[in-house]
Amino acid sequence: MSTTDKKYDFGMIGLGTMGRNLLLNMGDHDVAGAGYDSDASKGKLLEEESTKKNLKGFSDIKEFTQSLKSPKAIMMLVPAGKIVDDVIEELIPLLDKGDILIDGGNSHFTDTNRRVDYLEAKGLHFFGMGISGGEEGARKGPSMMPGGDKEAYGVMKPILESIAAKVDGEPCVTYLGPGAAGHFVKMVHNGIEYGIMQLLAETYEILQNGLGLDNQAIQKIFAEWNEGRLQSFLMEITKDIFAFKAPGTDHLLLDDIKDEARAKGTGKWTSQVAMDLQAPITVIDTAVSMRDLSKYKELRVQAAELYSKNGTKMTGDADEMVKALEQAFYFSMVITYAQGMFELSQASKEYNYDLKLADIAKIWRGGCIIRSEFLNDIYNAFQKDKGLAHLLLDSEVQKLVSGALPGARTIVSGAALAGIGAPAFAAALSYFDMFRSKRMPSNLTQAQRDYFGAHTYELIGKEGKFHTQWVAKS
Amino acid sequence: MSTTDKKYDFGMIGLGTMGRNLLLNMGDHDVAGAGYDSDASKGKLLEEESTKKNLKGFSDIKEFTQSLKSPKAIMMLVPAGKIVDDVIEELIPLLDKGDILIDGGNSHFTDTNRRVDYLEAKGLHFFGMGISGGEEGARKGPSMMPGGDKEAYGVMKPILESIAAKVDGEPCVTYLGPGAAGHFVKMVHNGIEYGIMQLLAETYEILQNGLGLDNQAIQKIFAEWNEGRLQSFLMEITKDIFAFKAPGTDHLLLDDIKDEARAKGTGKWTSQVAMDLQAPITVIDTAVSMRDLSKYKELRVQAAELYSKNGTKMTGDADEMVKALEQAFYFSMVITYAQGMFELSQASKEYNYDLKLADIAKIWRGGCIIRSEFLNDIYNAFQKDKGLAHLLLDSEVQKLVSGALPGARTIVSGAALAGIGAPAFAAALSYFDMFRSKRMPSNLTQAQRDYFGAHTYELIGKEGKFHTQWVAKS
Repeated sequence: MSTTDKKYDFGMIGLGTMGRNLLLNMGDHDVAGAGYDSDASKGKLLEEESTKKNLKGFSDIKEFTQSLKSPKAIMMLVPAGKIVDDVIEELIPLLDKGDILIDGGNSHFTDTNRRVDYLEAKGLHFFGMGISGGEEGARKGPSMMPGGDKEAYGVMKPILESIAAKVDGEPCVTYLGPGAAGHFVKMVHNGIEYGIMQLLAETYEILQNGLGLDNQAIQKIFAEWNEGRLQSFLMEITKDIFAFKAPGTDHLLLDDIKDEARAKGTGKWTSQVAMDLQAPITVIDTAVSMRDLSKYKELRVQAAELYSKNGTKMTGDADEMVKALEQAFYFSMVITYAQGMFELSQASKEYNYDLKLADIAKIWRGGCIIRSEFLNDIYNAFQKDKGLAHLLLDSEVQKLVSGALPGARTIVSGAALAGIGAPAFAAALSYFDMFRSKRMPSNLTQAQRDYFGAHTYELIGKEGKFHTQWVAKS
Repeated sequence: MSTTDKKYDFGMIGLGTMGRNLLLNMGDHDVAGAGYDSDASKGKLLEEESTKKNLKGFSDIKEFTQSLKSPKAIMMLVPAGKIVDDVIEELIPLLDKGDILIDGGNSHFTDTNRRVDYLEAKGLHFFGMGISGGEEGARKGPSMMPGGDKEAYGVMKPILESIAAKVDGEPCVTYLGPGAAGHFVKMVHNGIEYGIMQLLAETYEILQNGLGLDNQAIQKIFAEWNEGRLQSFLMEITKDIFAFKAPGTDHLLLDDIKDEARAKGTGKWTSQVAMDLQAPITVIDTAVSMRDLSKYKELRVQAAELYSKNGTKMTGDADEMVKALEQAFYFSMVITYAQGMFELSQASKEYNYDLKLADIAKIWRGGCIIRSEFLNDIYNAFQKDKGLAHLLLDSEVQKLVSGALPGARTIVSGAALAGIGAPAFAAALSYFDMFRSKRMPSNLTQAQRDYFGAHTYELIGKEGKFHTQWVAKS
């Protein structure tokens, strides 16, 4: 095909799981779609799986771009990093001024900033958009976080709204802000995801090793929790995982899986950027650290021999402890979201994103990996008070947090005494206790800094910076 | 002075507290030194304070460089970042091939890497050197961490050894490795410093708000501890701070200081890089987060009103609790050093620094901010087994850690129950409990990642990566 009579509404570059499913989703919504992948088998798969037979696969990028209606609208769903730049360079000669290019991957927001400037100078409309929902979400309705070129988003809006997840009839996609706002929000979404996954892992650890429950009992607890206020996508899949037998066996596949967690970097980025923004997100930091620690299996095996774990059961009535654990999970999950939202508010100030936290909570309620019952409370809090400086300062959230606090204290103290690792639970609780401190012990830190480095300190009720000769010069 | 008969052995750029004191120290050791600062008053101060009258101040950079013997040896002690590059550009036309330039500031190691390449191409010998010891250390004997151009270090070695702190007659300076090894080691030194300072702040919080002790009682405890195995520079100055009255009053200056801690970035860098290296340093991360959190005073005041702190005393006999706290501090301090040393070992592999951890512990024993009794144990551990993969795996350290563990459990659990924030103590203990886990709950994380994102998992005892369709496609 050199020039073709058939013109497609939308093009997708990268027909991996996410790209193919997203395009199939569009096809279902009567968008005629062209898909490009250098691996021709993926285009074939796309055509086979296309319900309405309105999708076509290409393995020649020129034919692919020529098949698109003008102005062309193309989304890239390729691995973050250099590959995105390579694809952009390949595309530039094939595009015309006014065409729209969307990066739907997990690009680092600083890369997106750079590309916004670069492509704007070439007369192309570019926007970055985070997409969450995994395989299933992409196919049936993801949550999408677009930012950047608002005009281009306006053109794409009908298509994106049609394929998005819906909550109460409203699509889980909305324009979030200029520049890399979309990718930034998606990055923090993933950070929160790391935090909640770590809390689930520690819950498993406590149920199994702290309370001595078997997998069946654990499955029952996760299933019950998923019917209550802890309802969430991650709780739901956890309950499923605890019911999944290794094929042909009578034990869980979970028990056969290596205890070494991998990561693709978005959680790490969330933590690194939070440190630049001076927005503490201690639960997410802990989750990143624990994924890292899990990889040093050999060291852990040696340490386990050296530091015995005899008698590491938690005390207390098992049913009471499970109730406390439900509270602890709820409490720590709230802290995780609160820290993530706070990072977003600090980023919004620093990068002039003008983020509307209520909108973000709203589009996270459906389709994405961190969707949960609690996101309604977050939405309500920021909807009620658009200037709310910290989620924990909302009066309704205060009630929820205070109600769950006793369980968090029971679990963190019990795990510490028993020798069960519960780092994310501990990080959530200790953050809370410091956050609600009218006076932190940081005056000592300032005094020390001034003592050894003459870094000065500030005084209560007196303007200025002061330095003291703390000991007589000898 | 255009050309002068007087030629100086060494030049210092930047006559702030550190630069001036370091040059005064050199002067005492019969090094004829020239100091440059655009602020002429600083050069005057240098000359006045010079004990042996062998130091001269300049405010003209050309006169300064012309006053130096050939090959010229110049150290910059200026704030990290762009200023270092500016000074380098100003110096280049004034230097000759073979001259030696030393960056003695806290430059980010990636900047140092860049400058190494840049200056080598210009025929100049450049090395980065971290210096610790603060004002007093610079004057009387700092710990110095040089890395980079080994030949140039060889030339400077006699001067640097003469001014360094001495422990058992040995100077606290040694060549650490190529490239930015020196600045990297200094960065991690500072990260450990952040961690220990945070532990001291939390100790203060527990003594004051958990156990209800007054400043005098707290001072007595810090003073006692400083006589035992907790002896360290930071403990020593803390004890002094708790004895220092606000001038003309009967209360501690400490009580008048704002509880908002500042930072210059080296702790943050240590954490950010550790995440890149996948070397978890949870205590340092926590310290960085708590400095950040302390700055949101207004939010904390609001949170304190919303979340009451009634009845936040810790239970247990006060004397017993102080003993437990001593153990908890010792335990957590060991974990902090262990995490820092582990980051160094991972960096050494990643950047080919070929670091000798025993050497590093050795030069940290004197002069620097984190010098402590315990550094002897670290030195012994890495001296005994140069391939020791983690400090916690040393058999002597194992005994020390196991002995202090009960106190750490008492304090972390007690603080969690009482509502006293002890995030760094909690981070140290929960890291330990996960590190000594033969099996972490991270298999669940991998199962979840595969469930929602088809990210695959690995199986125990079976090579390869696997993907499962966890629920039937609907």
